[in-house]
Amino acid sequence: MGVQNKVSLPVIKRLPKYYRYLTNLSADGKEKISSSELAHMMGTTASQVRQDFNCFGGFGQQGIGYKVDVLRAEIGKLLFGDGERLPTILIGAGHLGSAVSSFISRDTNGYRLIGVFDINPDLFGKEMSGVPILPLHTLSDFCAQHHPEVAVLCVPRQSAIDLAGDLVSYGIHGVWNFSHYDLSVEYPELTVENVHLGDSLMSLGYRLRNKE
Amino acid sequence: MGVQNKVSLPVIKRLPKYYRYLTNLSADGKEKISSSELAHMMGTTASQVRQDFNCFGGFGQQGIGYKVDVLRAEIGKLLFGDGERLPTILIGAGHLGSAVSSFISRDTNGYRLIGVFDINPDLFGKEMSGVPILPLHTLSDFCAQHHPEVAVLCVPRQSAIDLAGDLVSYGIHGVWNFSHYDLSVEYPELTVENVHLGDSLMSLGYRLRNKE
Repeated sequence: MGVQNKVSLPVIKRLPKYYRYLTNLSADGKEKISSSELAHMMGTTASQVRQDFNCFGGFGQQGIGYKVDVLRAEIGKLLFGDGERLPTILIGAGHLGSAVSSFISRDTNGYRLIGVFDINPDLFGKEMSGVPILPLHTLSDFCAQHHPEVAVLCVPRQSAIDLAGDLVSYGIHGVWNFSHYDLSVEYPELTVENVHLGDSLMSLGYRLRNKE
Repeated sequence: MGVQNKVSLPVIKRLPKYYRYLTNLSADGKEKISSSELAHMMGTTASQVRQDFNCFGGFGQQGIGYKVDVLRAEIGKLLFGDGERLPTILIGAGHLGSAVSSFISRDTNGYRLIGVFDINPDLFGKEMSGVPILPLHTLSDFCAQHHPEVAVLCVPRQSAIDLAGDLVSYGIHGVWNFSHYDLSVEYPELTVENVHLGDSLMSLGYRLRNKE
């Protein structure tokens, strides 16, 4: 399968949605699906679906439709590679950290939670999603020993600013970022996925207040 | 200020980010900023910034730069209207619900949390962000009495499917959706902001596994 050199971010962001829909279809026993059926379910157009799939070599023959399981497996390979899960640490063990840790430890997403860090001594020794919470000052040693590749940042903006350089020097190259600090501006070598919950709420507010 | 009839979703999604940066600049005592300075900080281009602002009438004179406080106030008006906060309910009082409830109850985001609902009797009478957790079967009466406009869905996919029609009939017109059900396909009258955390993680994984 020929993957084009550079797939655009909007296409990449739609891959998990395709994967979710195909997983549901497969669970419902559906064997084949056309691009227009898939598009209709997902609230998009058949042309968009075909264009997206063409970025990865097409996945099927036009006019015949796609085999659900084959398509799901192909997209799964793109998302999860050979199935090896990415070793991941989480920093900030508050409410948000606790909620998102379950997404990391859920093995269907392709990650493996290996360490959780906080600065609050009351949390040390407790567990989050089955992983002990450690003092933040042990992070450097931990990374030297266990080589995490991904960090999840559930900390305030200033803590993220203070941590970013260290994380890069410890070998972290991917960040799932819940902080209000846009790391990728200063550290373009990092692959960053931002989840700015406040921004999401504010743009919902704009749309509700400015409805036609 | 002339707002164009239909501002595109990517522009709307960038407004909170401008607002955040301007808030930081204002806190740092910065009085004026050029589109290229702002663009540089945010990791975008001056042309993008000017294009975005032009959707709302421009906010300033080219070549002179923007007054930080004036620009922040103008964007704030777009995001928060006259400042009246949107009455909001949250459904699903688990870890995720607990984490996101603080974003709703934080008055800087433009919402007012007025009710929290769950089906777990162990939670009834407890509080989340200062609001009592109520049984889900009382939702209809609650909505008839208190007229919430926005619902936050922190429930599994099937519960979201089961609830969606009811929410529309109770007068809800905005949804902050953490469930894996894309409500806007079946209910186009709803304004929906999706936060699919699993999707976000998977697309990060794709980018990490397919780096050039």
